[in-house]
Amino acid sequence: MEGLFRKEAVVHGFGEIATPIFEHTELFTLKSGPNIIDEMYAFEDKGGRQIALRPELTAPSMRFFVNELTNYPRPLKVFYFGQCFRYERPQSGRYREFFQFGAELIGAPNPESDAEVIGLAADLIRRSGLTDYNIRIGHIGVLRGMLSRGGVTSEKASPILQKLDKRLYEEARPLMRDSGLSEDAMEEIVRTTQIIGTPDLLEEHPGEASDYLREVFAILADYGITNVQVDLGVVRGLDYYTGIVFEIDAPCLGAEKQICGGGSYSLTELFGGEKAFSTGFAIGFDRTLLALEREGLTPAKVRLDAYVVPTSEAMRHKAFSVVNLLRRQGISADVDLMRRSVGKNLKYADSISARYVIIVGEKEDSQGAVTVRDLSSGEQTLVKVEALPYQMK
Amino acid sequence: MEGLFRKEAVVHGFGEIATPIFEHTELFTLKSGPNIIDEMYAFEDKGGRQIALRPELTAPSMRFFVNELTNYPRPLKVFYFGQCFRYERPQSGRYREFFQFGAELIGAPNPESDAEVIGLAADLIRRSGLTDYNIRIGHIGVLRGMLSRGGVTSEKASPILQKLDKRLYEEARPLMRDSGLSEDAMEEIVRTTQIIGTPDLLEEHPGEASDYLREVFAILADYGITNVQVDLGVVRGLDYYTGIVFEIDAPCLGAEKQICGGGSYSLTELFGGEKAFSTGFAIGFDRTLLALEREGLTPAKVRLDAYVVPTSEAMRHKAFSVVNLLRRQGISADVDLMRRSVGKNLKYADSISARYVIIVGEKEDSQGAVTVRDLSSGEQTLVKVEALPYQMK
Repeated sequence: MEGLFRKEAVVHGFGEIATPIFEHTELFTLKSGPNIIDEMYAFEDKGGRQIALRPELTAPSMRFFVNELTNYPRPLKVFYFGQCFRYERPQSGRYREFFQFGAELIGAPNPESDAEVIGLAADLIRRSGLTDYNIRIGHIGVLRGMLSRGGVTSEKASPILQKLDKRLYEEARPLMRDSGLSEDAMEEIVRTTQIIGTPDLLEEHPGEASDYLREVFAILADYGITNVQVDLGVVRGLDYYTGIVFEIDAPCLGAEKQICGGGSYSLTELFGGEKAFSTGFAIGFDRTLLALEREGLTPAKVRLDAYVVPTSEAMRHKAFSVVNLLRRQGISADVDLMRRSVGKNLKYADSISARYVIIVGEKEDSQGAVTVRDLSSGEQTLVKVEALPYQMK
Repeated sequence: MEGLFRKEAVVHGFGEIATPIFEHTELFTLKSGPNIIDEMYAFEDKGGRQIALRPELTAPSMRFFVNELTNYPRPLKVFYFGQCFRYERPQSGRYREFFQFGAELIGAPNPESDAEVIGLAADLIRRSGLTDYNIRIGHIGVLRGMLSRGGVTSEKASPILQKLDKRLYEEARPLMRDSGLSEDAMEEIVRTTQIIGTPDLLEEHPGEASDYLREVFAILADYGITNVQVDLGVVRGLDYYTGIVFEIDAPCLGAEKQICGGGSYSLTELFGGEKAFSTGFAIGFDRTLLALEREGLTPAKVRLDAYVVPTSEAMRHKAFSVVNLLRRQGISADVDLMRRSVGKNLKYADSISARYVIIVGEKEDSQGAVTVRDLSSGEQTLVKVEALPYQMK
């Protein structure tokens, strides 16, 4: 899946970046607040520096951009695949070391940039082979606008949005009440977070954010992506999001069903750079594999093309040159390294599910040939050594 | 180079493994002695566990084998690519975080296993494109045998071998003298460490180790690998090596010229498993890249196949579907996301070295076609949209 995702990201015009496994702890507290220290592997190194194993890869990517990539032409489209670390109780779908595959687009705050990023996330999940999943797209401006029109300051809006994001209405209501919202306004906000469905639902909620979302959905349709829903309750509860927000979930995973989260945000100025508009996402790689497993999809085993067996001590060196001939042609090949009998070698070839066994014997050798046995059909043919690579391809 | 190495290892019948970024500190002190703590990123985690960022990947691979892979058929051939960490003064070719690409073969202690592993290392370096490098192979039995015949206990032999490995003769001599070796024996040992050259040099040093090495060289010749030298001074100074030892160096790197080291060893019993004979190596990935750079080889830039430009606002959605058509066929394609003018888009396509620009205009659209401009020749052709993916391949 790693190779598949890499290839798909390159086809979409994204370039791979790699950042260090650990960063200054401050990078992550700047982005996510001081409480994140409790969830991180944070240490002091021998030089007295506060360092942390990265809990996610958006902050490192943006730090890298600010330090090294600001002179690249825009839009800048990057992707990453790497380990992240969280110190939390391990459970199904939540590991202390886990892999994220993600992408960031730095360019302009517009629907085409957002659709481009959501399009990649959607194509990756489609390519993974997963069949049951939901792509839900919202816009943080809808609820922020409603709160602001109700007189709620942006400082008081943050904790409310965090509760709404988790659909914890009974905890959100007292916060909304305290910040001066009327009961009617409150109920309209709650109702809005429950709007999930086809993009035409947006017509009932006119406004700038709604127009913006409609254009995102239109471009996604150009990209052939129509299995997407509007979900005005997606807020992702973090202050640095600026516009669209989206999530992909796989219902088969139950409580830990989210396999991708993303949105448009602005972080560069926090890390000492100029303001830059970005859209990005991260896919939980292990969780996606878990969802595939739940759907009964297991990765195809890598099979060896050819296992080469000499029939006698005298044929050993001949067998080594045959295996070399195949490898030089890109055919995966192996040879007896354990000095086993022919019978035991055939059993071993079977146990590793090799496609062909190539028997290097003295009689065949006198004709410059080897015997090729197809392990699925059991069929045997005599093949000239120089024709072997073409025969196997 | 990562992809190239992975492919070559699979062709050689090795399977990829991945182990965690950190392990219990004890794993590394068991293998390399307590002094390694000073060179590691070693910490206590929130649960009071002593953990260390891995300084190398052989110990983790063997720990993984003992825990998870002992029931797999032998020989077991694995490879890895990953980050390692050492707390030392950063300098050219020595980083605090660096990548190793390595392989381990667990099977039988015989020349074919050793040649199989050296063969992979040699093919990887050859495939990297590096031209000036030396592969030097020795056998720890030669010097160990000479010391033992001179009456040196294996306890006293270790520090002597470590000095000889670094060719620190003035420090080795007093140790040898103290352990009871005669001046003649000492000088023969020193002379032996200086034997470097073609495999026929082995004829002057008959014995078991020499016979063994000759068979390794014979199999390497079957594998088409003849650019290898005997070097009886390669000892790698660590107690867990059991037989052959080898190194690859790139002279252009000066003092830090070693790009690969390996040998046959036995570690599983140290980690609580049954004794298993292994041969393995690790390639310093960053250092190999540095050597390639010194030789003037820079990696080919990933080029975008097609950059799609709409000529007007009305053509935007058409452009998005054209880019989707190409991507679905595996053609890397990008589209204007910044609402730039046609002129600016052409400049951008040039700046990212795209192969083709695809112009989506109203006149062409009325014929169901687009204009394809080859950016290297400047040639322009009108192409029907449905024929586009075939035209581009």
